[in-house]
Amino acid sequence: MTDLTPNLPEVVAEVSALFEAYEQALIDKNVDVLDATFWNSPHTIRYALHENGYGFDEIHAHRVARPPGPGIKEKRIRLEILTLGRDIATVNLEFKVRGRDLIGRQSQSWVRFPELGWKVISAHVSTMDGLKLY
Amino acid sequence: MTDLTPNLPEVVAEVSALFEAYEQALIDKNVDVLDATFWNSPHTIRYALHENGYGFDEIHAHRVARPPGPGIKEKRIRLEILTLGRDIATVNLEFKVRGRDLIGRQSQSWVRFPELGWKVISAHVSTMDGLKLY
Repeated sequence: MTDLTPNLPEVVAEVSALFEAYEQALIDKNVDVLDATFWNSPHTIRYALHENGYGFDEIHAHRVARPPGPGIKEKRIRLEILTLGRDIATVNLEFKVRGRDLIGRQSQSWVRFPELGWKVISAHVSTMDGLKLY
Repeated sequence: MTDLTPNLPEVVAEVSALFEAYEQALIDKNVDVLDATFWNSPHTIRYALHENGYGFDEIHAHRVARPPGPGIKEKRIRLEILTLGRDIATVNLEFKVRGRDLIGRQSQSWVRFPELGWKVISAHVSTMDGLKLY
């Protein structure tokens, strides 16, 4: 069993740097960086605001179709990076949606693969709507 | 480095059984099972439909406050369980929201801890609203 020590500082720094590069790539529409961030596998899933991407190829197609620009994140409210040992991480960001009185949330599951390095295997972006469903 | 073979059948079966028990516990409002499913740590995060829970204590409080009942999941559209090796898993469920023309998504990151067994370390539930944000 692998070591699961939470938040070794050098591991948090690795994931943090990759996350920030990904966020910048969203703004720049740098598809190479966006693609390199996600695991190139049919198992990778990205639930986005307006679409559900199953597998790397669908996720890639959504990247290509998306306009560049400053994006919907107006302000970060809370960013939490959790690493467990040297191979597992989650990133969760709560943010204010640009120009709207609306909270957004972004979650990513990262795994460090021996040959590939850190990759996102699952991601989910949403807004907290006002519907009272329960 | 740990083995990251995808979807070993016996590992998928373990996670699947735990996920189904969790789904039933949501319907039954079985707080013991809900609590046992999530990692008891200040690092655990659950972005739910109507609240963002940071840390096990907040997540537990949301469980207690929630009404029991059949829940918002009327029908499963697509359930994807991915396991990597014997210690890492993600569960993603796309579903139809009960009584509404609305798609919901549920994502969980699972890790198997040596002493604790499988636990959710991060979860995110949302609906795909109709806002065109980009």
